[in-house]
Amino acid sequence: MTASVAVAGASGYAGGEVLRLLLGHGGVEIGTLTAGSNAGERLGALQPHLLPLADRVLADTTVETLAGHDVVFLGLPHGQSAAIAQAIGDDTVVIDCGADFRLDDPGEWQAFYGGEHAGSWPYGLPELPGQRELLRGARRIAVPGCYPTVSTLAIAPAVAAGLVEPDVTVVAASGTSGAGKAAKPHLLGSEVMGNASAYGVGGTHRHTPEIVQNLSGVAGSPVKVGFTPLLVPMSRGILATVQAPLLDGVAAAQVRDAYTTAYDSEPFVHLLPDGQWPQTQSVLGSNAVQVQVTVDERVRRLVAVAVVDNLAKGTAGAAVQCMNLALGLDEATGLSTIGLAP
Amino acid sequence: MTASVAVAGASGYAGGEVLRLLLGHGGVEIGTLTAGSNAGERLGALQPHLLPLADRVLADTTVETLAGHDVVFLGLPHGQSAAIAQAIGDDTVVIDCGADFRLDDPGEWQAFYGGEHAGSWPYGLPELPGQRELLRGARRIAVPGCYPTVSTLAIAPAVAAGLVEPDVTVVAASGTSGAGKAAKPHLLGSEVMGNASAYGVGGTHRHTPEIVQNLSGVAGSPVKVGFTPLLVPMSRGILATVQAPLLDGVAAAQVRDAYTTAYDSEPFVHLLPDGQWPQTQSVLGSNAVQVQVTVDERVRRLVAVAVVDNLAKGTAGAAVQCMNLALGLDEATGLSTIGLAP
Amino acid sequence: MTASVAVAGASGYAGGEVLRLLLGHGGVEIGTLTAGSNAGERLGALQPHLLPLADRVLADTTVETLAGHDVVFLGLPHGQSAAIAQAIGDDTVVIDCGADFRLDDPGEWQAFYGGEHAGSWPYGLPELPGQRELLRGARRIAVPGCYPTVSTLAIAPAVAAGLVEPDVTVVAASGTSGAGKAAKPHLLGSEVMGNASAYGVGGTHRHTPEIVQNLSGVAGSPVKVGFTPLLVPMSRGILATVQAPLLDGVAAAQVRDAYTTAYDSEPFVHLLPDGQWPQTQSVLGSNAVQVQVTVDERVRRLVAVAVVDNLAKGTAGAAVQCMNLALGLDEATGLSTIGLAP
Amino acid sequence: MTASVAVAGASGYAGGEVLRLLLGHGGVEIGTLTAGSNAGERLGALQPHLLPLADRVLADTTVETLAGHDVVFLGLPHGQSAAIAQAIGDDTVVIDCGADFRLDDPGEWQAFYGGEHAGSWPYGLPELPGQRELLRGARRIAVPGCYPTVSTLAIAPAVAAGLVEPDVTVVAASGTSGAGKAAKPHLLGSEVMGNASAYGVGGTHRHTPEIVQNLSGVAGSPVKVGFTPLLVPMSRGILATVQAPLLDGVAAAQVRDAYTTAYDSEPFVHLLPDGQWPQTQSVLGSNAVQVQVTVDERVRRLVAVAVVDNLAKGTAGAAVQCMNLALGLDEATGLSTIGLAP
Repeated sequence: MTASVAVAGASGYAGGEVLRLLLGHGGVEIGTLTAGSNAGERLGALQPHLLPLADRVLADTTVETLAGHDVVFLGLPHGQSAAIAQAIGDDTVVIDCGADFRLDDPGEWQAFYGGEHAGSWPYGLPELPGQRELLRGARRIAVPGCYPTVSTLAIAPAVAAGLVEPDVTVVAASGTSGAGKAAKPHLLGSEVMGNASAYGVGGTHRHTPEIVQNLSGVAGSPVKVGFTPLLVPMSRGILATVQAPLLDGVAAAQVRDAYTTAYDSEPFVHLLPDGQWPQTQSVLGSNAVQVQVTVDERVRRLVAVAVVDNLAKGTAGAAVQCMNLALGLDEATGLSTIGLAP
Repeated sequence: MTASVAVAGASGYAGGEVLRLLLGHGGVEIGTLTAGSNAGERLGALQPHLLPLADRVLADTTVETLAGHDVVFLGLPHGQSAAIAQAIGDDTVVIDCGADFRLDDPGEWQAFYGGEHAGSWPYGLPELPGQRELLRGARRIAVPGCYPTVSTLAIAPAVAAGLVEPDVTVVAASGTSGAGKAAKPHLLGSEVMGNASAYGVGGTHRHTPEIVQNLSGVAGSPVKVGFTPLLVPMSRGILATVQAPLLDGVAAAQVRDAYTTAYDSEPFVHLLPDGQWPQTQSVLGSNAVQVQVTVDERVRRLVAVAVVDNLAKGTAGAAVQCMNLALGLDEATGLSTIGLAP
Repeated sequence: MTASVAVAGASGYAGGEVLRLLLGHGGVEIGTLTAGSNAGERLGALQPHLLPLADRVLADTTVETLAGHDVVFLGLPHGQSAAIAQAIGDDTVVIDCGADFRLDDPGEWQAFYGGEHAGSWPYGLPELPGQRELLRGARRIAVPGCYPTVSTLAIAPAVAAGLVEPDVTVVAASGTSGAGKAAKPHLLGSEVMGNASAYGVGGTHRHTPEIVQNLSGVAGSPVKVGFTPLLVPMSRGILATVQAPLLDGVAAAQVRDAYTTAYDSEPFVHLLPDGQWPQTQSVLGSNAVQVQVTVDERVRRLVAVAVVDNLAKGTAGAAVQCMNLALGLDEATGLSTIGLAP
Repeated sequence: MTASVAVAGASGYAGGEVLRLLLGHGGVEIGTLTAGSNAGERLGALQPHLLPLADRVLADTTVETLAGHDVVFLGLPHGQSAAIAQAIGDDTVVIDCGADFRLDDPGEWQAFYGGEHAGSWPYGLPELPGQRELLRGARRIAVPGCYPTVSTLAIAPAVAAGLVEPDVTVVAASGTSGAGKAAKPHLLGSEVMGNASAYGVGGTHRHTPEIVQNLSGVAGSPVKVGFTPLLVPMSRGILATVQAPLLDGVAAAQVRDAYTTAYDSEPFVHLLPDGQWPQTQSVLGSNAVQVQVTVDERVRRLVAVAVVDNLAKGTAGAAVQCMNLALGLDEATGLSTIGLAP
């Protein structure tokens, strides 16, 4: 049976990437595509790389246009998903690429996003311990943020195995597409090419509580996270450097074992051979996360580096992976571990 | 039946892209992978984006290692294909991504490449009039150069329809991957980022006679071509601006008709709607060529712009497309018209 | 005596570059800085690279705030200069970086910009034959467009010497800063990195009539110009490829002689040694134009390539050069021929 | 009096940047320029951005060609400076842009560079407490590494004031020019554009002991440093994120006070206004370091971010600054705090 799929926010980067992946999926039929201010336009004018859908015309984003599909992907600005999601029947799979349903703690929601907390849905990171089972057959799924995905996967095995202190530092360099397609002066090509910058420094970025939630869940007790995002001159990709003090007595071999065990059977997380370090180019367009880990003995600190395509595994790839789980399909359908390089 | 395929030059950009496409093909089995100075290394260390092949070890490029496959792709430096190709049996499909067998005219070969002319093979641009039939079932195929592919397709309909003078000007901006993976100072990131340059100016670039050959073939009489290649700061993609004086009395509508007719049923060449201009991002990783054409009435000149991914449709995609024709498969197997954007 | 200088549009790219150059000039005092929607803000928040002016606060752009300076630079959106310029006294030097006063022909203004033609001022390209004298002591100067500067200088010697047909083709690849600092989706970093595109194809770009005006002036008779601008992934710089059919009997040596003669004593236009081709990186931040020229004998066409920093010699550097002429200073004061590379 | 200056390694990035700055210095005469394999070539072919020196021919790098100048800058591969420096008379100022004389501890030299330790020279970071006095009139100066410069200045005020634990973490994103001009495959444009990567992870990068030396000197007791360098797609610039746990009871205001006090009278280190974060574009071509600092109260960690142009203040700018001190000139002669942006 072929599932019918609607995509809300089809003119944006997340929506466009969902469509790119669905076009190669084989098990779905692409139904209604909607947009906000771009409603009424041809998709070909907005997403010229999606040639097979060029003649599709975007509908308004409403409950009515989205109704009647087996799956609805929401690629909407933060805060707009809740109203729509609540009006869509429970038999429809709704997969939200936004932040509305990611955080369990209303206080953290309030502190970082403001406004009323809409609640929380099953969190779409199947690689977390026990999480895959919660996603099979789910009807509501919150896709993780891009930084939390790569940051969490970079250090989770060490946290789960109790090898590090619960005091994690993340510095993550991201391409610009994570900031979306809305035109803002500091995101102009002239401003970002040849330029690296820091933003949201000091724990103020909204993805901070999400990483805390993930790692605390893995540890079973609170984990502190200091998170610094950087903007670097590329369209796609995040490289996260994640560090934590090693507990006394822990040896480098134990660290490597923990990672090997954690990821050996994961289809999309790949621990690189010793000595090879990740680069974002390797995962462009792919659903893979490439990870490497070492111990800096001079400072007794674990240093892990992981890369992800923020739009693919960091957003739309995870969304499709979750859809597969929700629909009972093979988890990897329509997804690949092959990047576009150079 | 699944065809077995060997790739010579698997550590280079052309070879890597052939492998990326073959991994998604479904109808082939990837056999021996060979290299020159990288023989003996893991593919994962050289092409870390090709995760499913990471543990393959590269063999030496010899007739022996390549023998016994149904298809052999050659991604070798110019001048090295002939000796190997001659030693491979006639029942094997040999697809050469290099220049050795592209030119019909020994004098042009001598003038632009030097050394002895190895001969010419069926030319792998199925979109040329009559060319597709020559490629079906062929056992030797010369993959076109990247600049000739995009330049030829940009103006061929007007040349074929006799709408322009046989005096064509091409200015084509290319990413750096067309120059290959051999390390040269002027190709360093520090030299190419934030920098645009011209090279091979004045008709000296080796792709000039190939464009002449293609367009003269289409016209049925000699066509002059002035070709200027530019290097611009991106890894992949070529944008070609191709111009020719319009013949007296020819109207813009005739031009558009000629293009529509020529490309309406082509699976990989897409004429954009009036007013929309091509950008290379739209075809990254894709086998599509996006084309637009207009008439500059003030100077009575046809101006066409076309984009291609130099490694995909410009090299490896064309190679796979030709393999499909050679093997009698659907021409589009394993190829897509969807780009990776942004 | 130190001239006092005001800059209108100090938060934009042209205004910022004027300030960068004035800070190293030595003979001026930087007075009032104005802006539109950014009025009231610290310059340091908008132009953080101009540290010595970080604490300056932007005034509104009005006749009153600009009055009382010896020199006023206008870096305003097209169409806004005329009203202000008319209200500023004739003893003040007004240098307009916008297009309002560049075109002599009201019909061309109407066709390409629309609205009423404000008139024309002395055209700030001192390298045109006879033009330098018109600029010495001038009180109103129209700074040329960036594309016209580099395109004109690339071919003017051949046009002036009567070596080519009056049928010029320009294809010019530009960085994104020429499009200004106003946020538009197609100028986002995610859209321009890894991407080359064409725009304004078919003679519709507003700089077309300006190139025609320049070359026709040099020739003393009408010259046709076909102009195609490209956008490539870099912040600054234009590389123009300019071609024209060579007249019968003209030899390559004559071409080189014409360029040598034309530019030998020019402080800012540099003909490269035979065989060396220009790259934009060489002129970043500099007032130099680097030029090379050759003859493609197979098509009997002159091919010239020239590079300019669109914000420096292409806009603000020319503005300062013109100010120097207007004030009777050494033309090169505060300007350099040294680029920032790599 | 005008000092005569020779530059060894004039074809490389450090040497080229020294020349760019000396051309605007005013107080020096540029004498002999030398190179290794490029000896005998015109500088214009290798450094086309340095137009005023285009016709200079490079000499061999020998004691004889360098002798007889007041100042000699060495921009040589690591390990080649010692032999030359020892043969140059003590009345000549020798400024080494390489690493040979940076480290005091022979054991650290041996561990990170191998081979015999050449000794240590006055360390050319005048902004370190007490360091400026050591450089005035010095005849031998070791220019700091680019990463150590920006990393040290980012956190030194907090270390000096005893506000943080002696446990510093540096993650620094660098452009590619820091890796030099020698052609290596992983530095090709095709490999670095659209790509972020980590290297030298786990404390293995050679700049690690230099940062340790600097901060331990500032603290007066050992400081641990974990250093992770990243390569990001830009030619110039480093953005360093430097963190350390805040000591109990230390308030954010104390941190800010410490930075204000430390840098208020420094000509080249600029603490940004509260809330404004550094970006590398602001310091391109400039000798400025822009710094910001905050406290992440959730994790009680100081987070500082600083940017530098690795070739300017990170190498050649520091070299010229040190020359000024050595010669008794104004420290800022020929240097600016103005960046080239956008």
